[in-house]
Amino acid sequence: MEGKRPTIYDVAKRAGVSKSLVSLVLQGSPRVGEASRRAVEEAIADLGYRPSRAAATLAARRTRTVGVLIDDYTNLWFVDLVRGLHAALGPAGYRLAVVDVATADQAEDPVESMLAMRVDGLVLGMDPPQSLLARDGAALPPVVVAGTRAAHDARFDAVANDDAEGARLAARHLVELGHRTLGQVCAGGGAGEVRRAAFTVEASGLGATVVDASWRGEASDEAGFRAAAELFAADPGITAVFAANDVMAVGVLGAARERGLDVPRDLSVVGYDDTSLASTRLVGLTTVDDRSFDVGHRAGALLRDRMGADGGAPSSARDSERDVLAPRLVVRGTTGAPG
Amino acid sequence: MEGKRPTIYDVAKRAGVSKSLVSLVLQGSPRVGEASRRAVEEAIADLGYRPSRAAATLAARRTRTVGVLIDDYTNLWFVDLVRGLHAALGPAGYRLAVVDVATADQAEDPVESMLAMRVDGLVLGMDPPQSLLARDGAALPPVVVAGTRAAHDARFDAVANDDAEGARLAARHLVELGHRTLGQVCAGGGAGEVRRAAFTVEASGLGATVVDASWRGEASDEAGFRAAAELFAADPGITAVFAANDVMAVGVLGAARERGLDVPRDLSVVGYDDTSLASTRLVGLTTVDDRSFDVGHRAGALLRDRMGADGGAPSSARDSERDVLAPRLVVRGTTGAPG
Repeated sequence: MEGKRPTIYDVAKRAGVSKSLVSLVLQGSPRVGEASRRAVEEAIADLGYRPSRAAATLAARRTRTVGVLIDDYTNLWFVDLVRGLHAALGPAGYRLAVVDVATADQAEDPVESMLAMRVDGLVLGMDPPQSLLARDGAALPPVVVAGTRAAHDARFDAVANDDAEGARLAARHLVELGHRTLGQVCAGGGAGEVRRAAFTVEASGLGATVVDASWRGEASDEAGFRAAAELFAADPGITAVFAANDVMAVGVLGAARERGLDVPRDLSVVGYDDTSLASTRLVGLTTVDDRSFDVGHRAGALLRDRMGADGGAPSSARDSERDVLAPRLVVRGTTGAPG
Repeated sequence: MEGKRPTIYDVAKRAGVSKSLVSLVLQGSPRVGEASRRAVEEAIADLGYRPSRAAATLAARRTRTVGVLIDDYTNLWFVDLVRGLHAALGPAGYRLAVVDVATADQAEDPVESMLAMRVDGLVLGMDPPQSLLARDGAALPPVVVAGTRAAHDARFDAVANDDAEGARLAARHLVELGHRTLGQVCAGGGAGEVRRAAFTVEASGLGATVVDASWRGEASDEAGFRAAAELFAADPGITAVFAANDVMAVGVLGAARERGLDVPRDLSVVGYDDTSLASTRLVGLTTVDDRSFDVGHRAGALLRDRMGADGGAPSSARDSERDVLAPRLVVRGTTGAPG
């Protein structure tokens, strides 16, 4: 055998599979089962088979996995985003792996983690971390920012709902109900800041007074509770609160409950995101639907295009796209006329 | 150059990196940045460098990623599990990727997806799917089943809280408060069934009557709502409901609210899992803490051991382990003496 270079037929024979299956393995096809894949790889190693650039092909082969990076599993807005991504990417043979920043080790670079998993594409369901923005684009797979337009990078496609318009919908709803002194709580981060600013401008323009809580940290129930307590102390005349996300809105409802305020008679509350929590009968939160499913679906389609699925060529050459979807107000039981 | 086989020094020189960095790349070390890794891989391809079994090494190299498979992102019990896994696996250099079955394409085999991502280990935060149980163990990375002991497979390590004991804690709490007619709702699946059976035996033994809802589907708010409505119709004398998970308990609270029942005066409700939702001030649910963080931490340690991290050898030879942690009753505002 010495000196006679093994062929793909030799590999197939040794592995007990067809030649086309060996080809599929070399291409990194997701249609090959794990056992067959291992058998082929062992045969390749045993025979010392070396197609042109075999090592590089195996190393660089596609994982058919798209990484989704989010802030925090407990902020449920991402669930519909993931459903939308699946709807666009699943039929093209891609799988999703979700990683949140909140549960991970703080010292870990989430972007590096995703790249180490060799994802074919990356969806950022959060503000792009500095470590991503600082990176050379050539070393990155296609990236789509989904759900926020803040801190954007011209290199990446971005899809989001119109956060400013959503906040204006909330402001108009409350003012039309007759509220004149409005409290506001929001988390740190790009989308929250856009919502906060637009709510203030719209409500003020309609003649209402807006009182801001000082909290600018993570979006959580506890943060919403504390921010609401701060608002109630600052101005007992507040009859309605706009929370820039549902999870903080639930914290506001908890603060109202602890204070003995009846919702909506004594206090109206509007959230943002229309998560599965908002639509429960227990919470029944009036909120702004941020169209997460549609955002995910559109983001998935853009990413699929960049990755060159469905036999099409990757379109890394086209300019990055910015898509903005119109949000919708969803009126449930937590808003009403004051008193 | 023809006939002269390139060495690792040639690769290092061409890539502009050190020899030891090339070695790290070949070993699949997570400490190598993406740009350096790509440079080394390109040099390998350009030079046709072939260490012994180079292709196989590159193909089989470790991703340092552990896959976590769960039922549904909206059932928040998994969040503390993931935190515990991170605490055990993060310091050993492993990252986690979470995939849920609910948002994915139903036709997709979740186990195959995880294997295609080339995870070094697999954590099942759900009943093991049939596709896993049917698999040849030799083609699988180490697997730990976390959070349920039902449908177990002797090949895998398993860590869970004592579901039967947790249900007994709930039964004793309600009977001690004076409740005599108890409703019960639970989802399908192993852990739910264990909780249901133990609750019935314990409460009956203490002289109470247990009325079961017929629902055996997914654990969701809507399912809890419907099951509770069924219970209220079946026996208006029910003064307390045990829900085998928090997300269904919130549905029960929603049903009580819609029916105008005051909680806990007219109806006491106990959940299971002690999720972040249960501890919100708005919900304030009495529940059983299933020790998810500790379960995740222990499961992560067992997996780390199997994967041979920290320089230790993989312990695939040892017998599989079953660890059971004692649950704890957490009394909040949804339980009290009957009105």
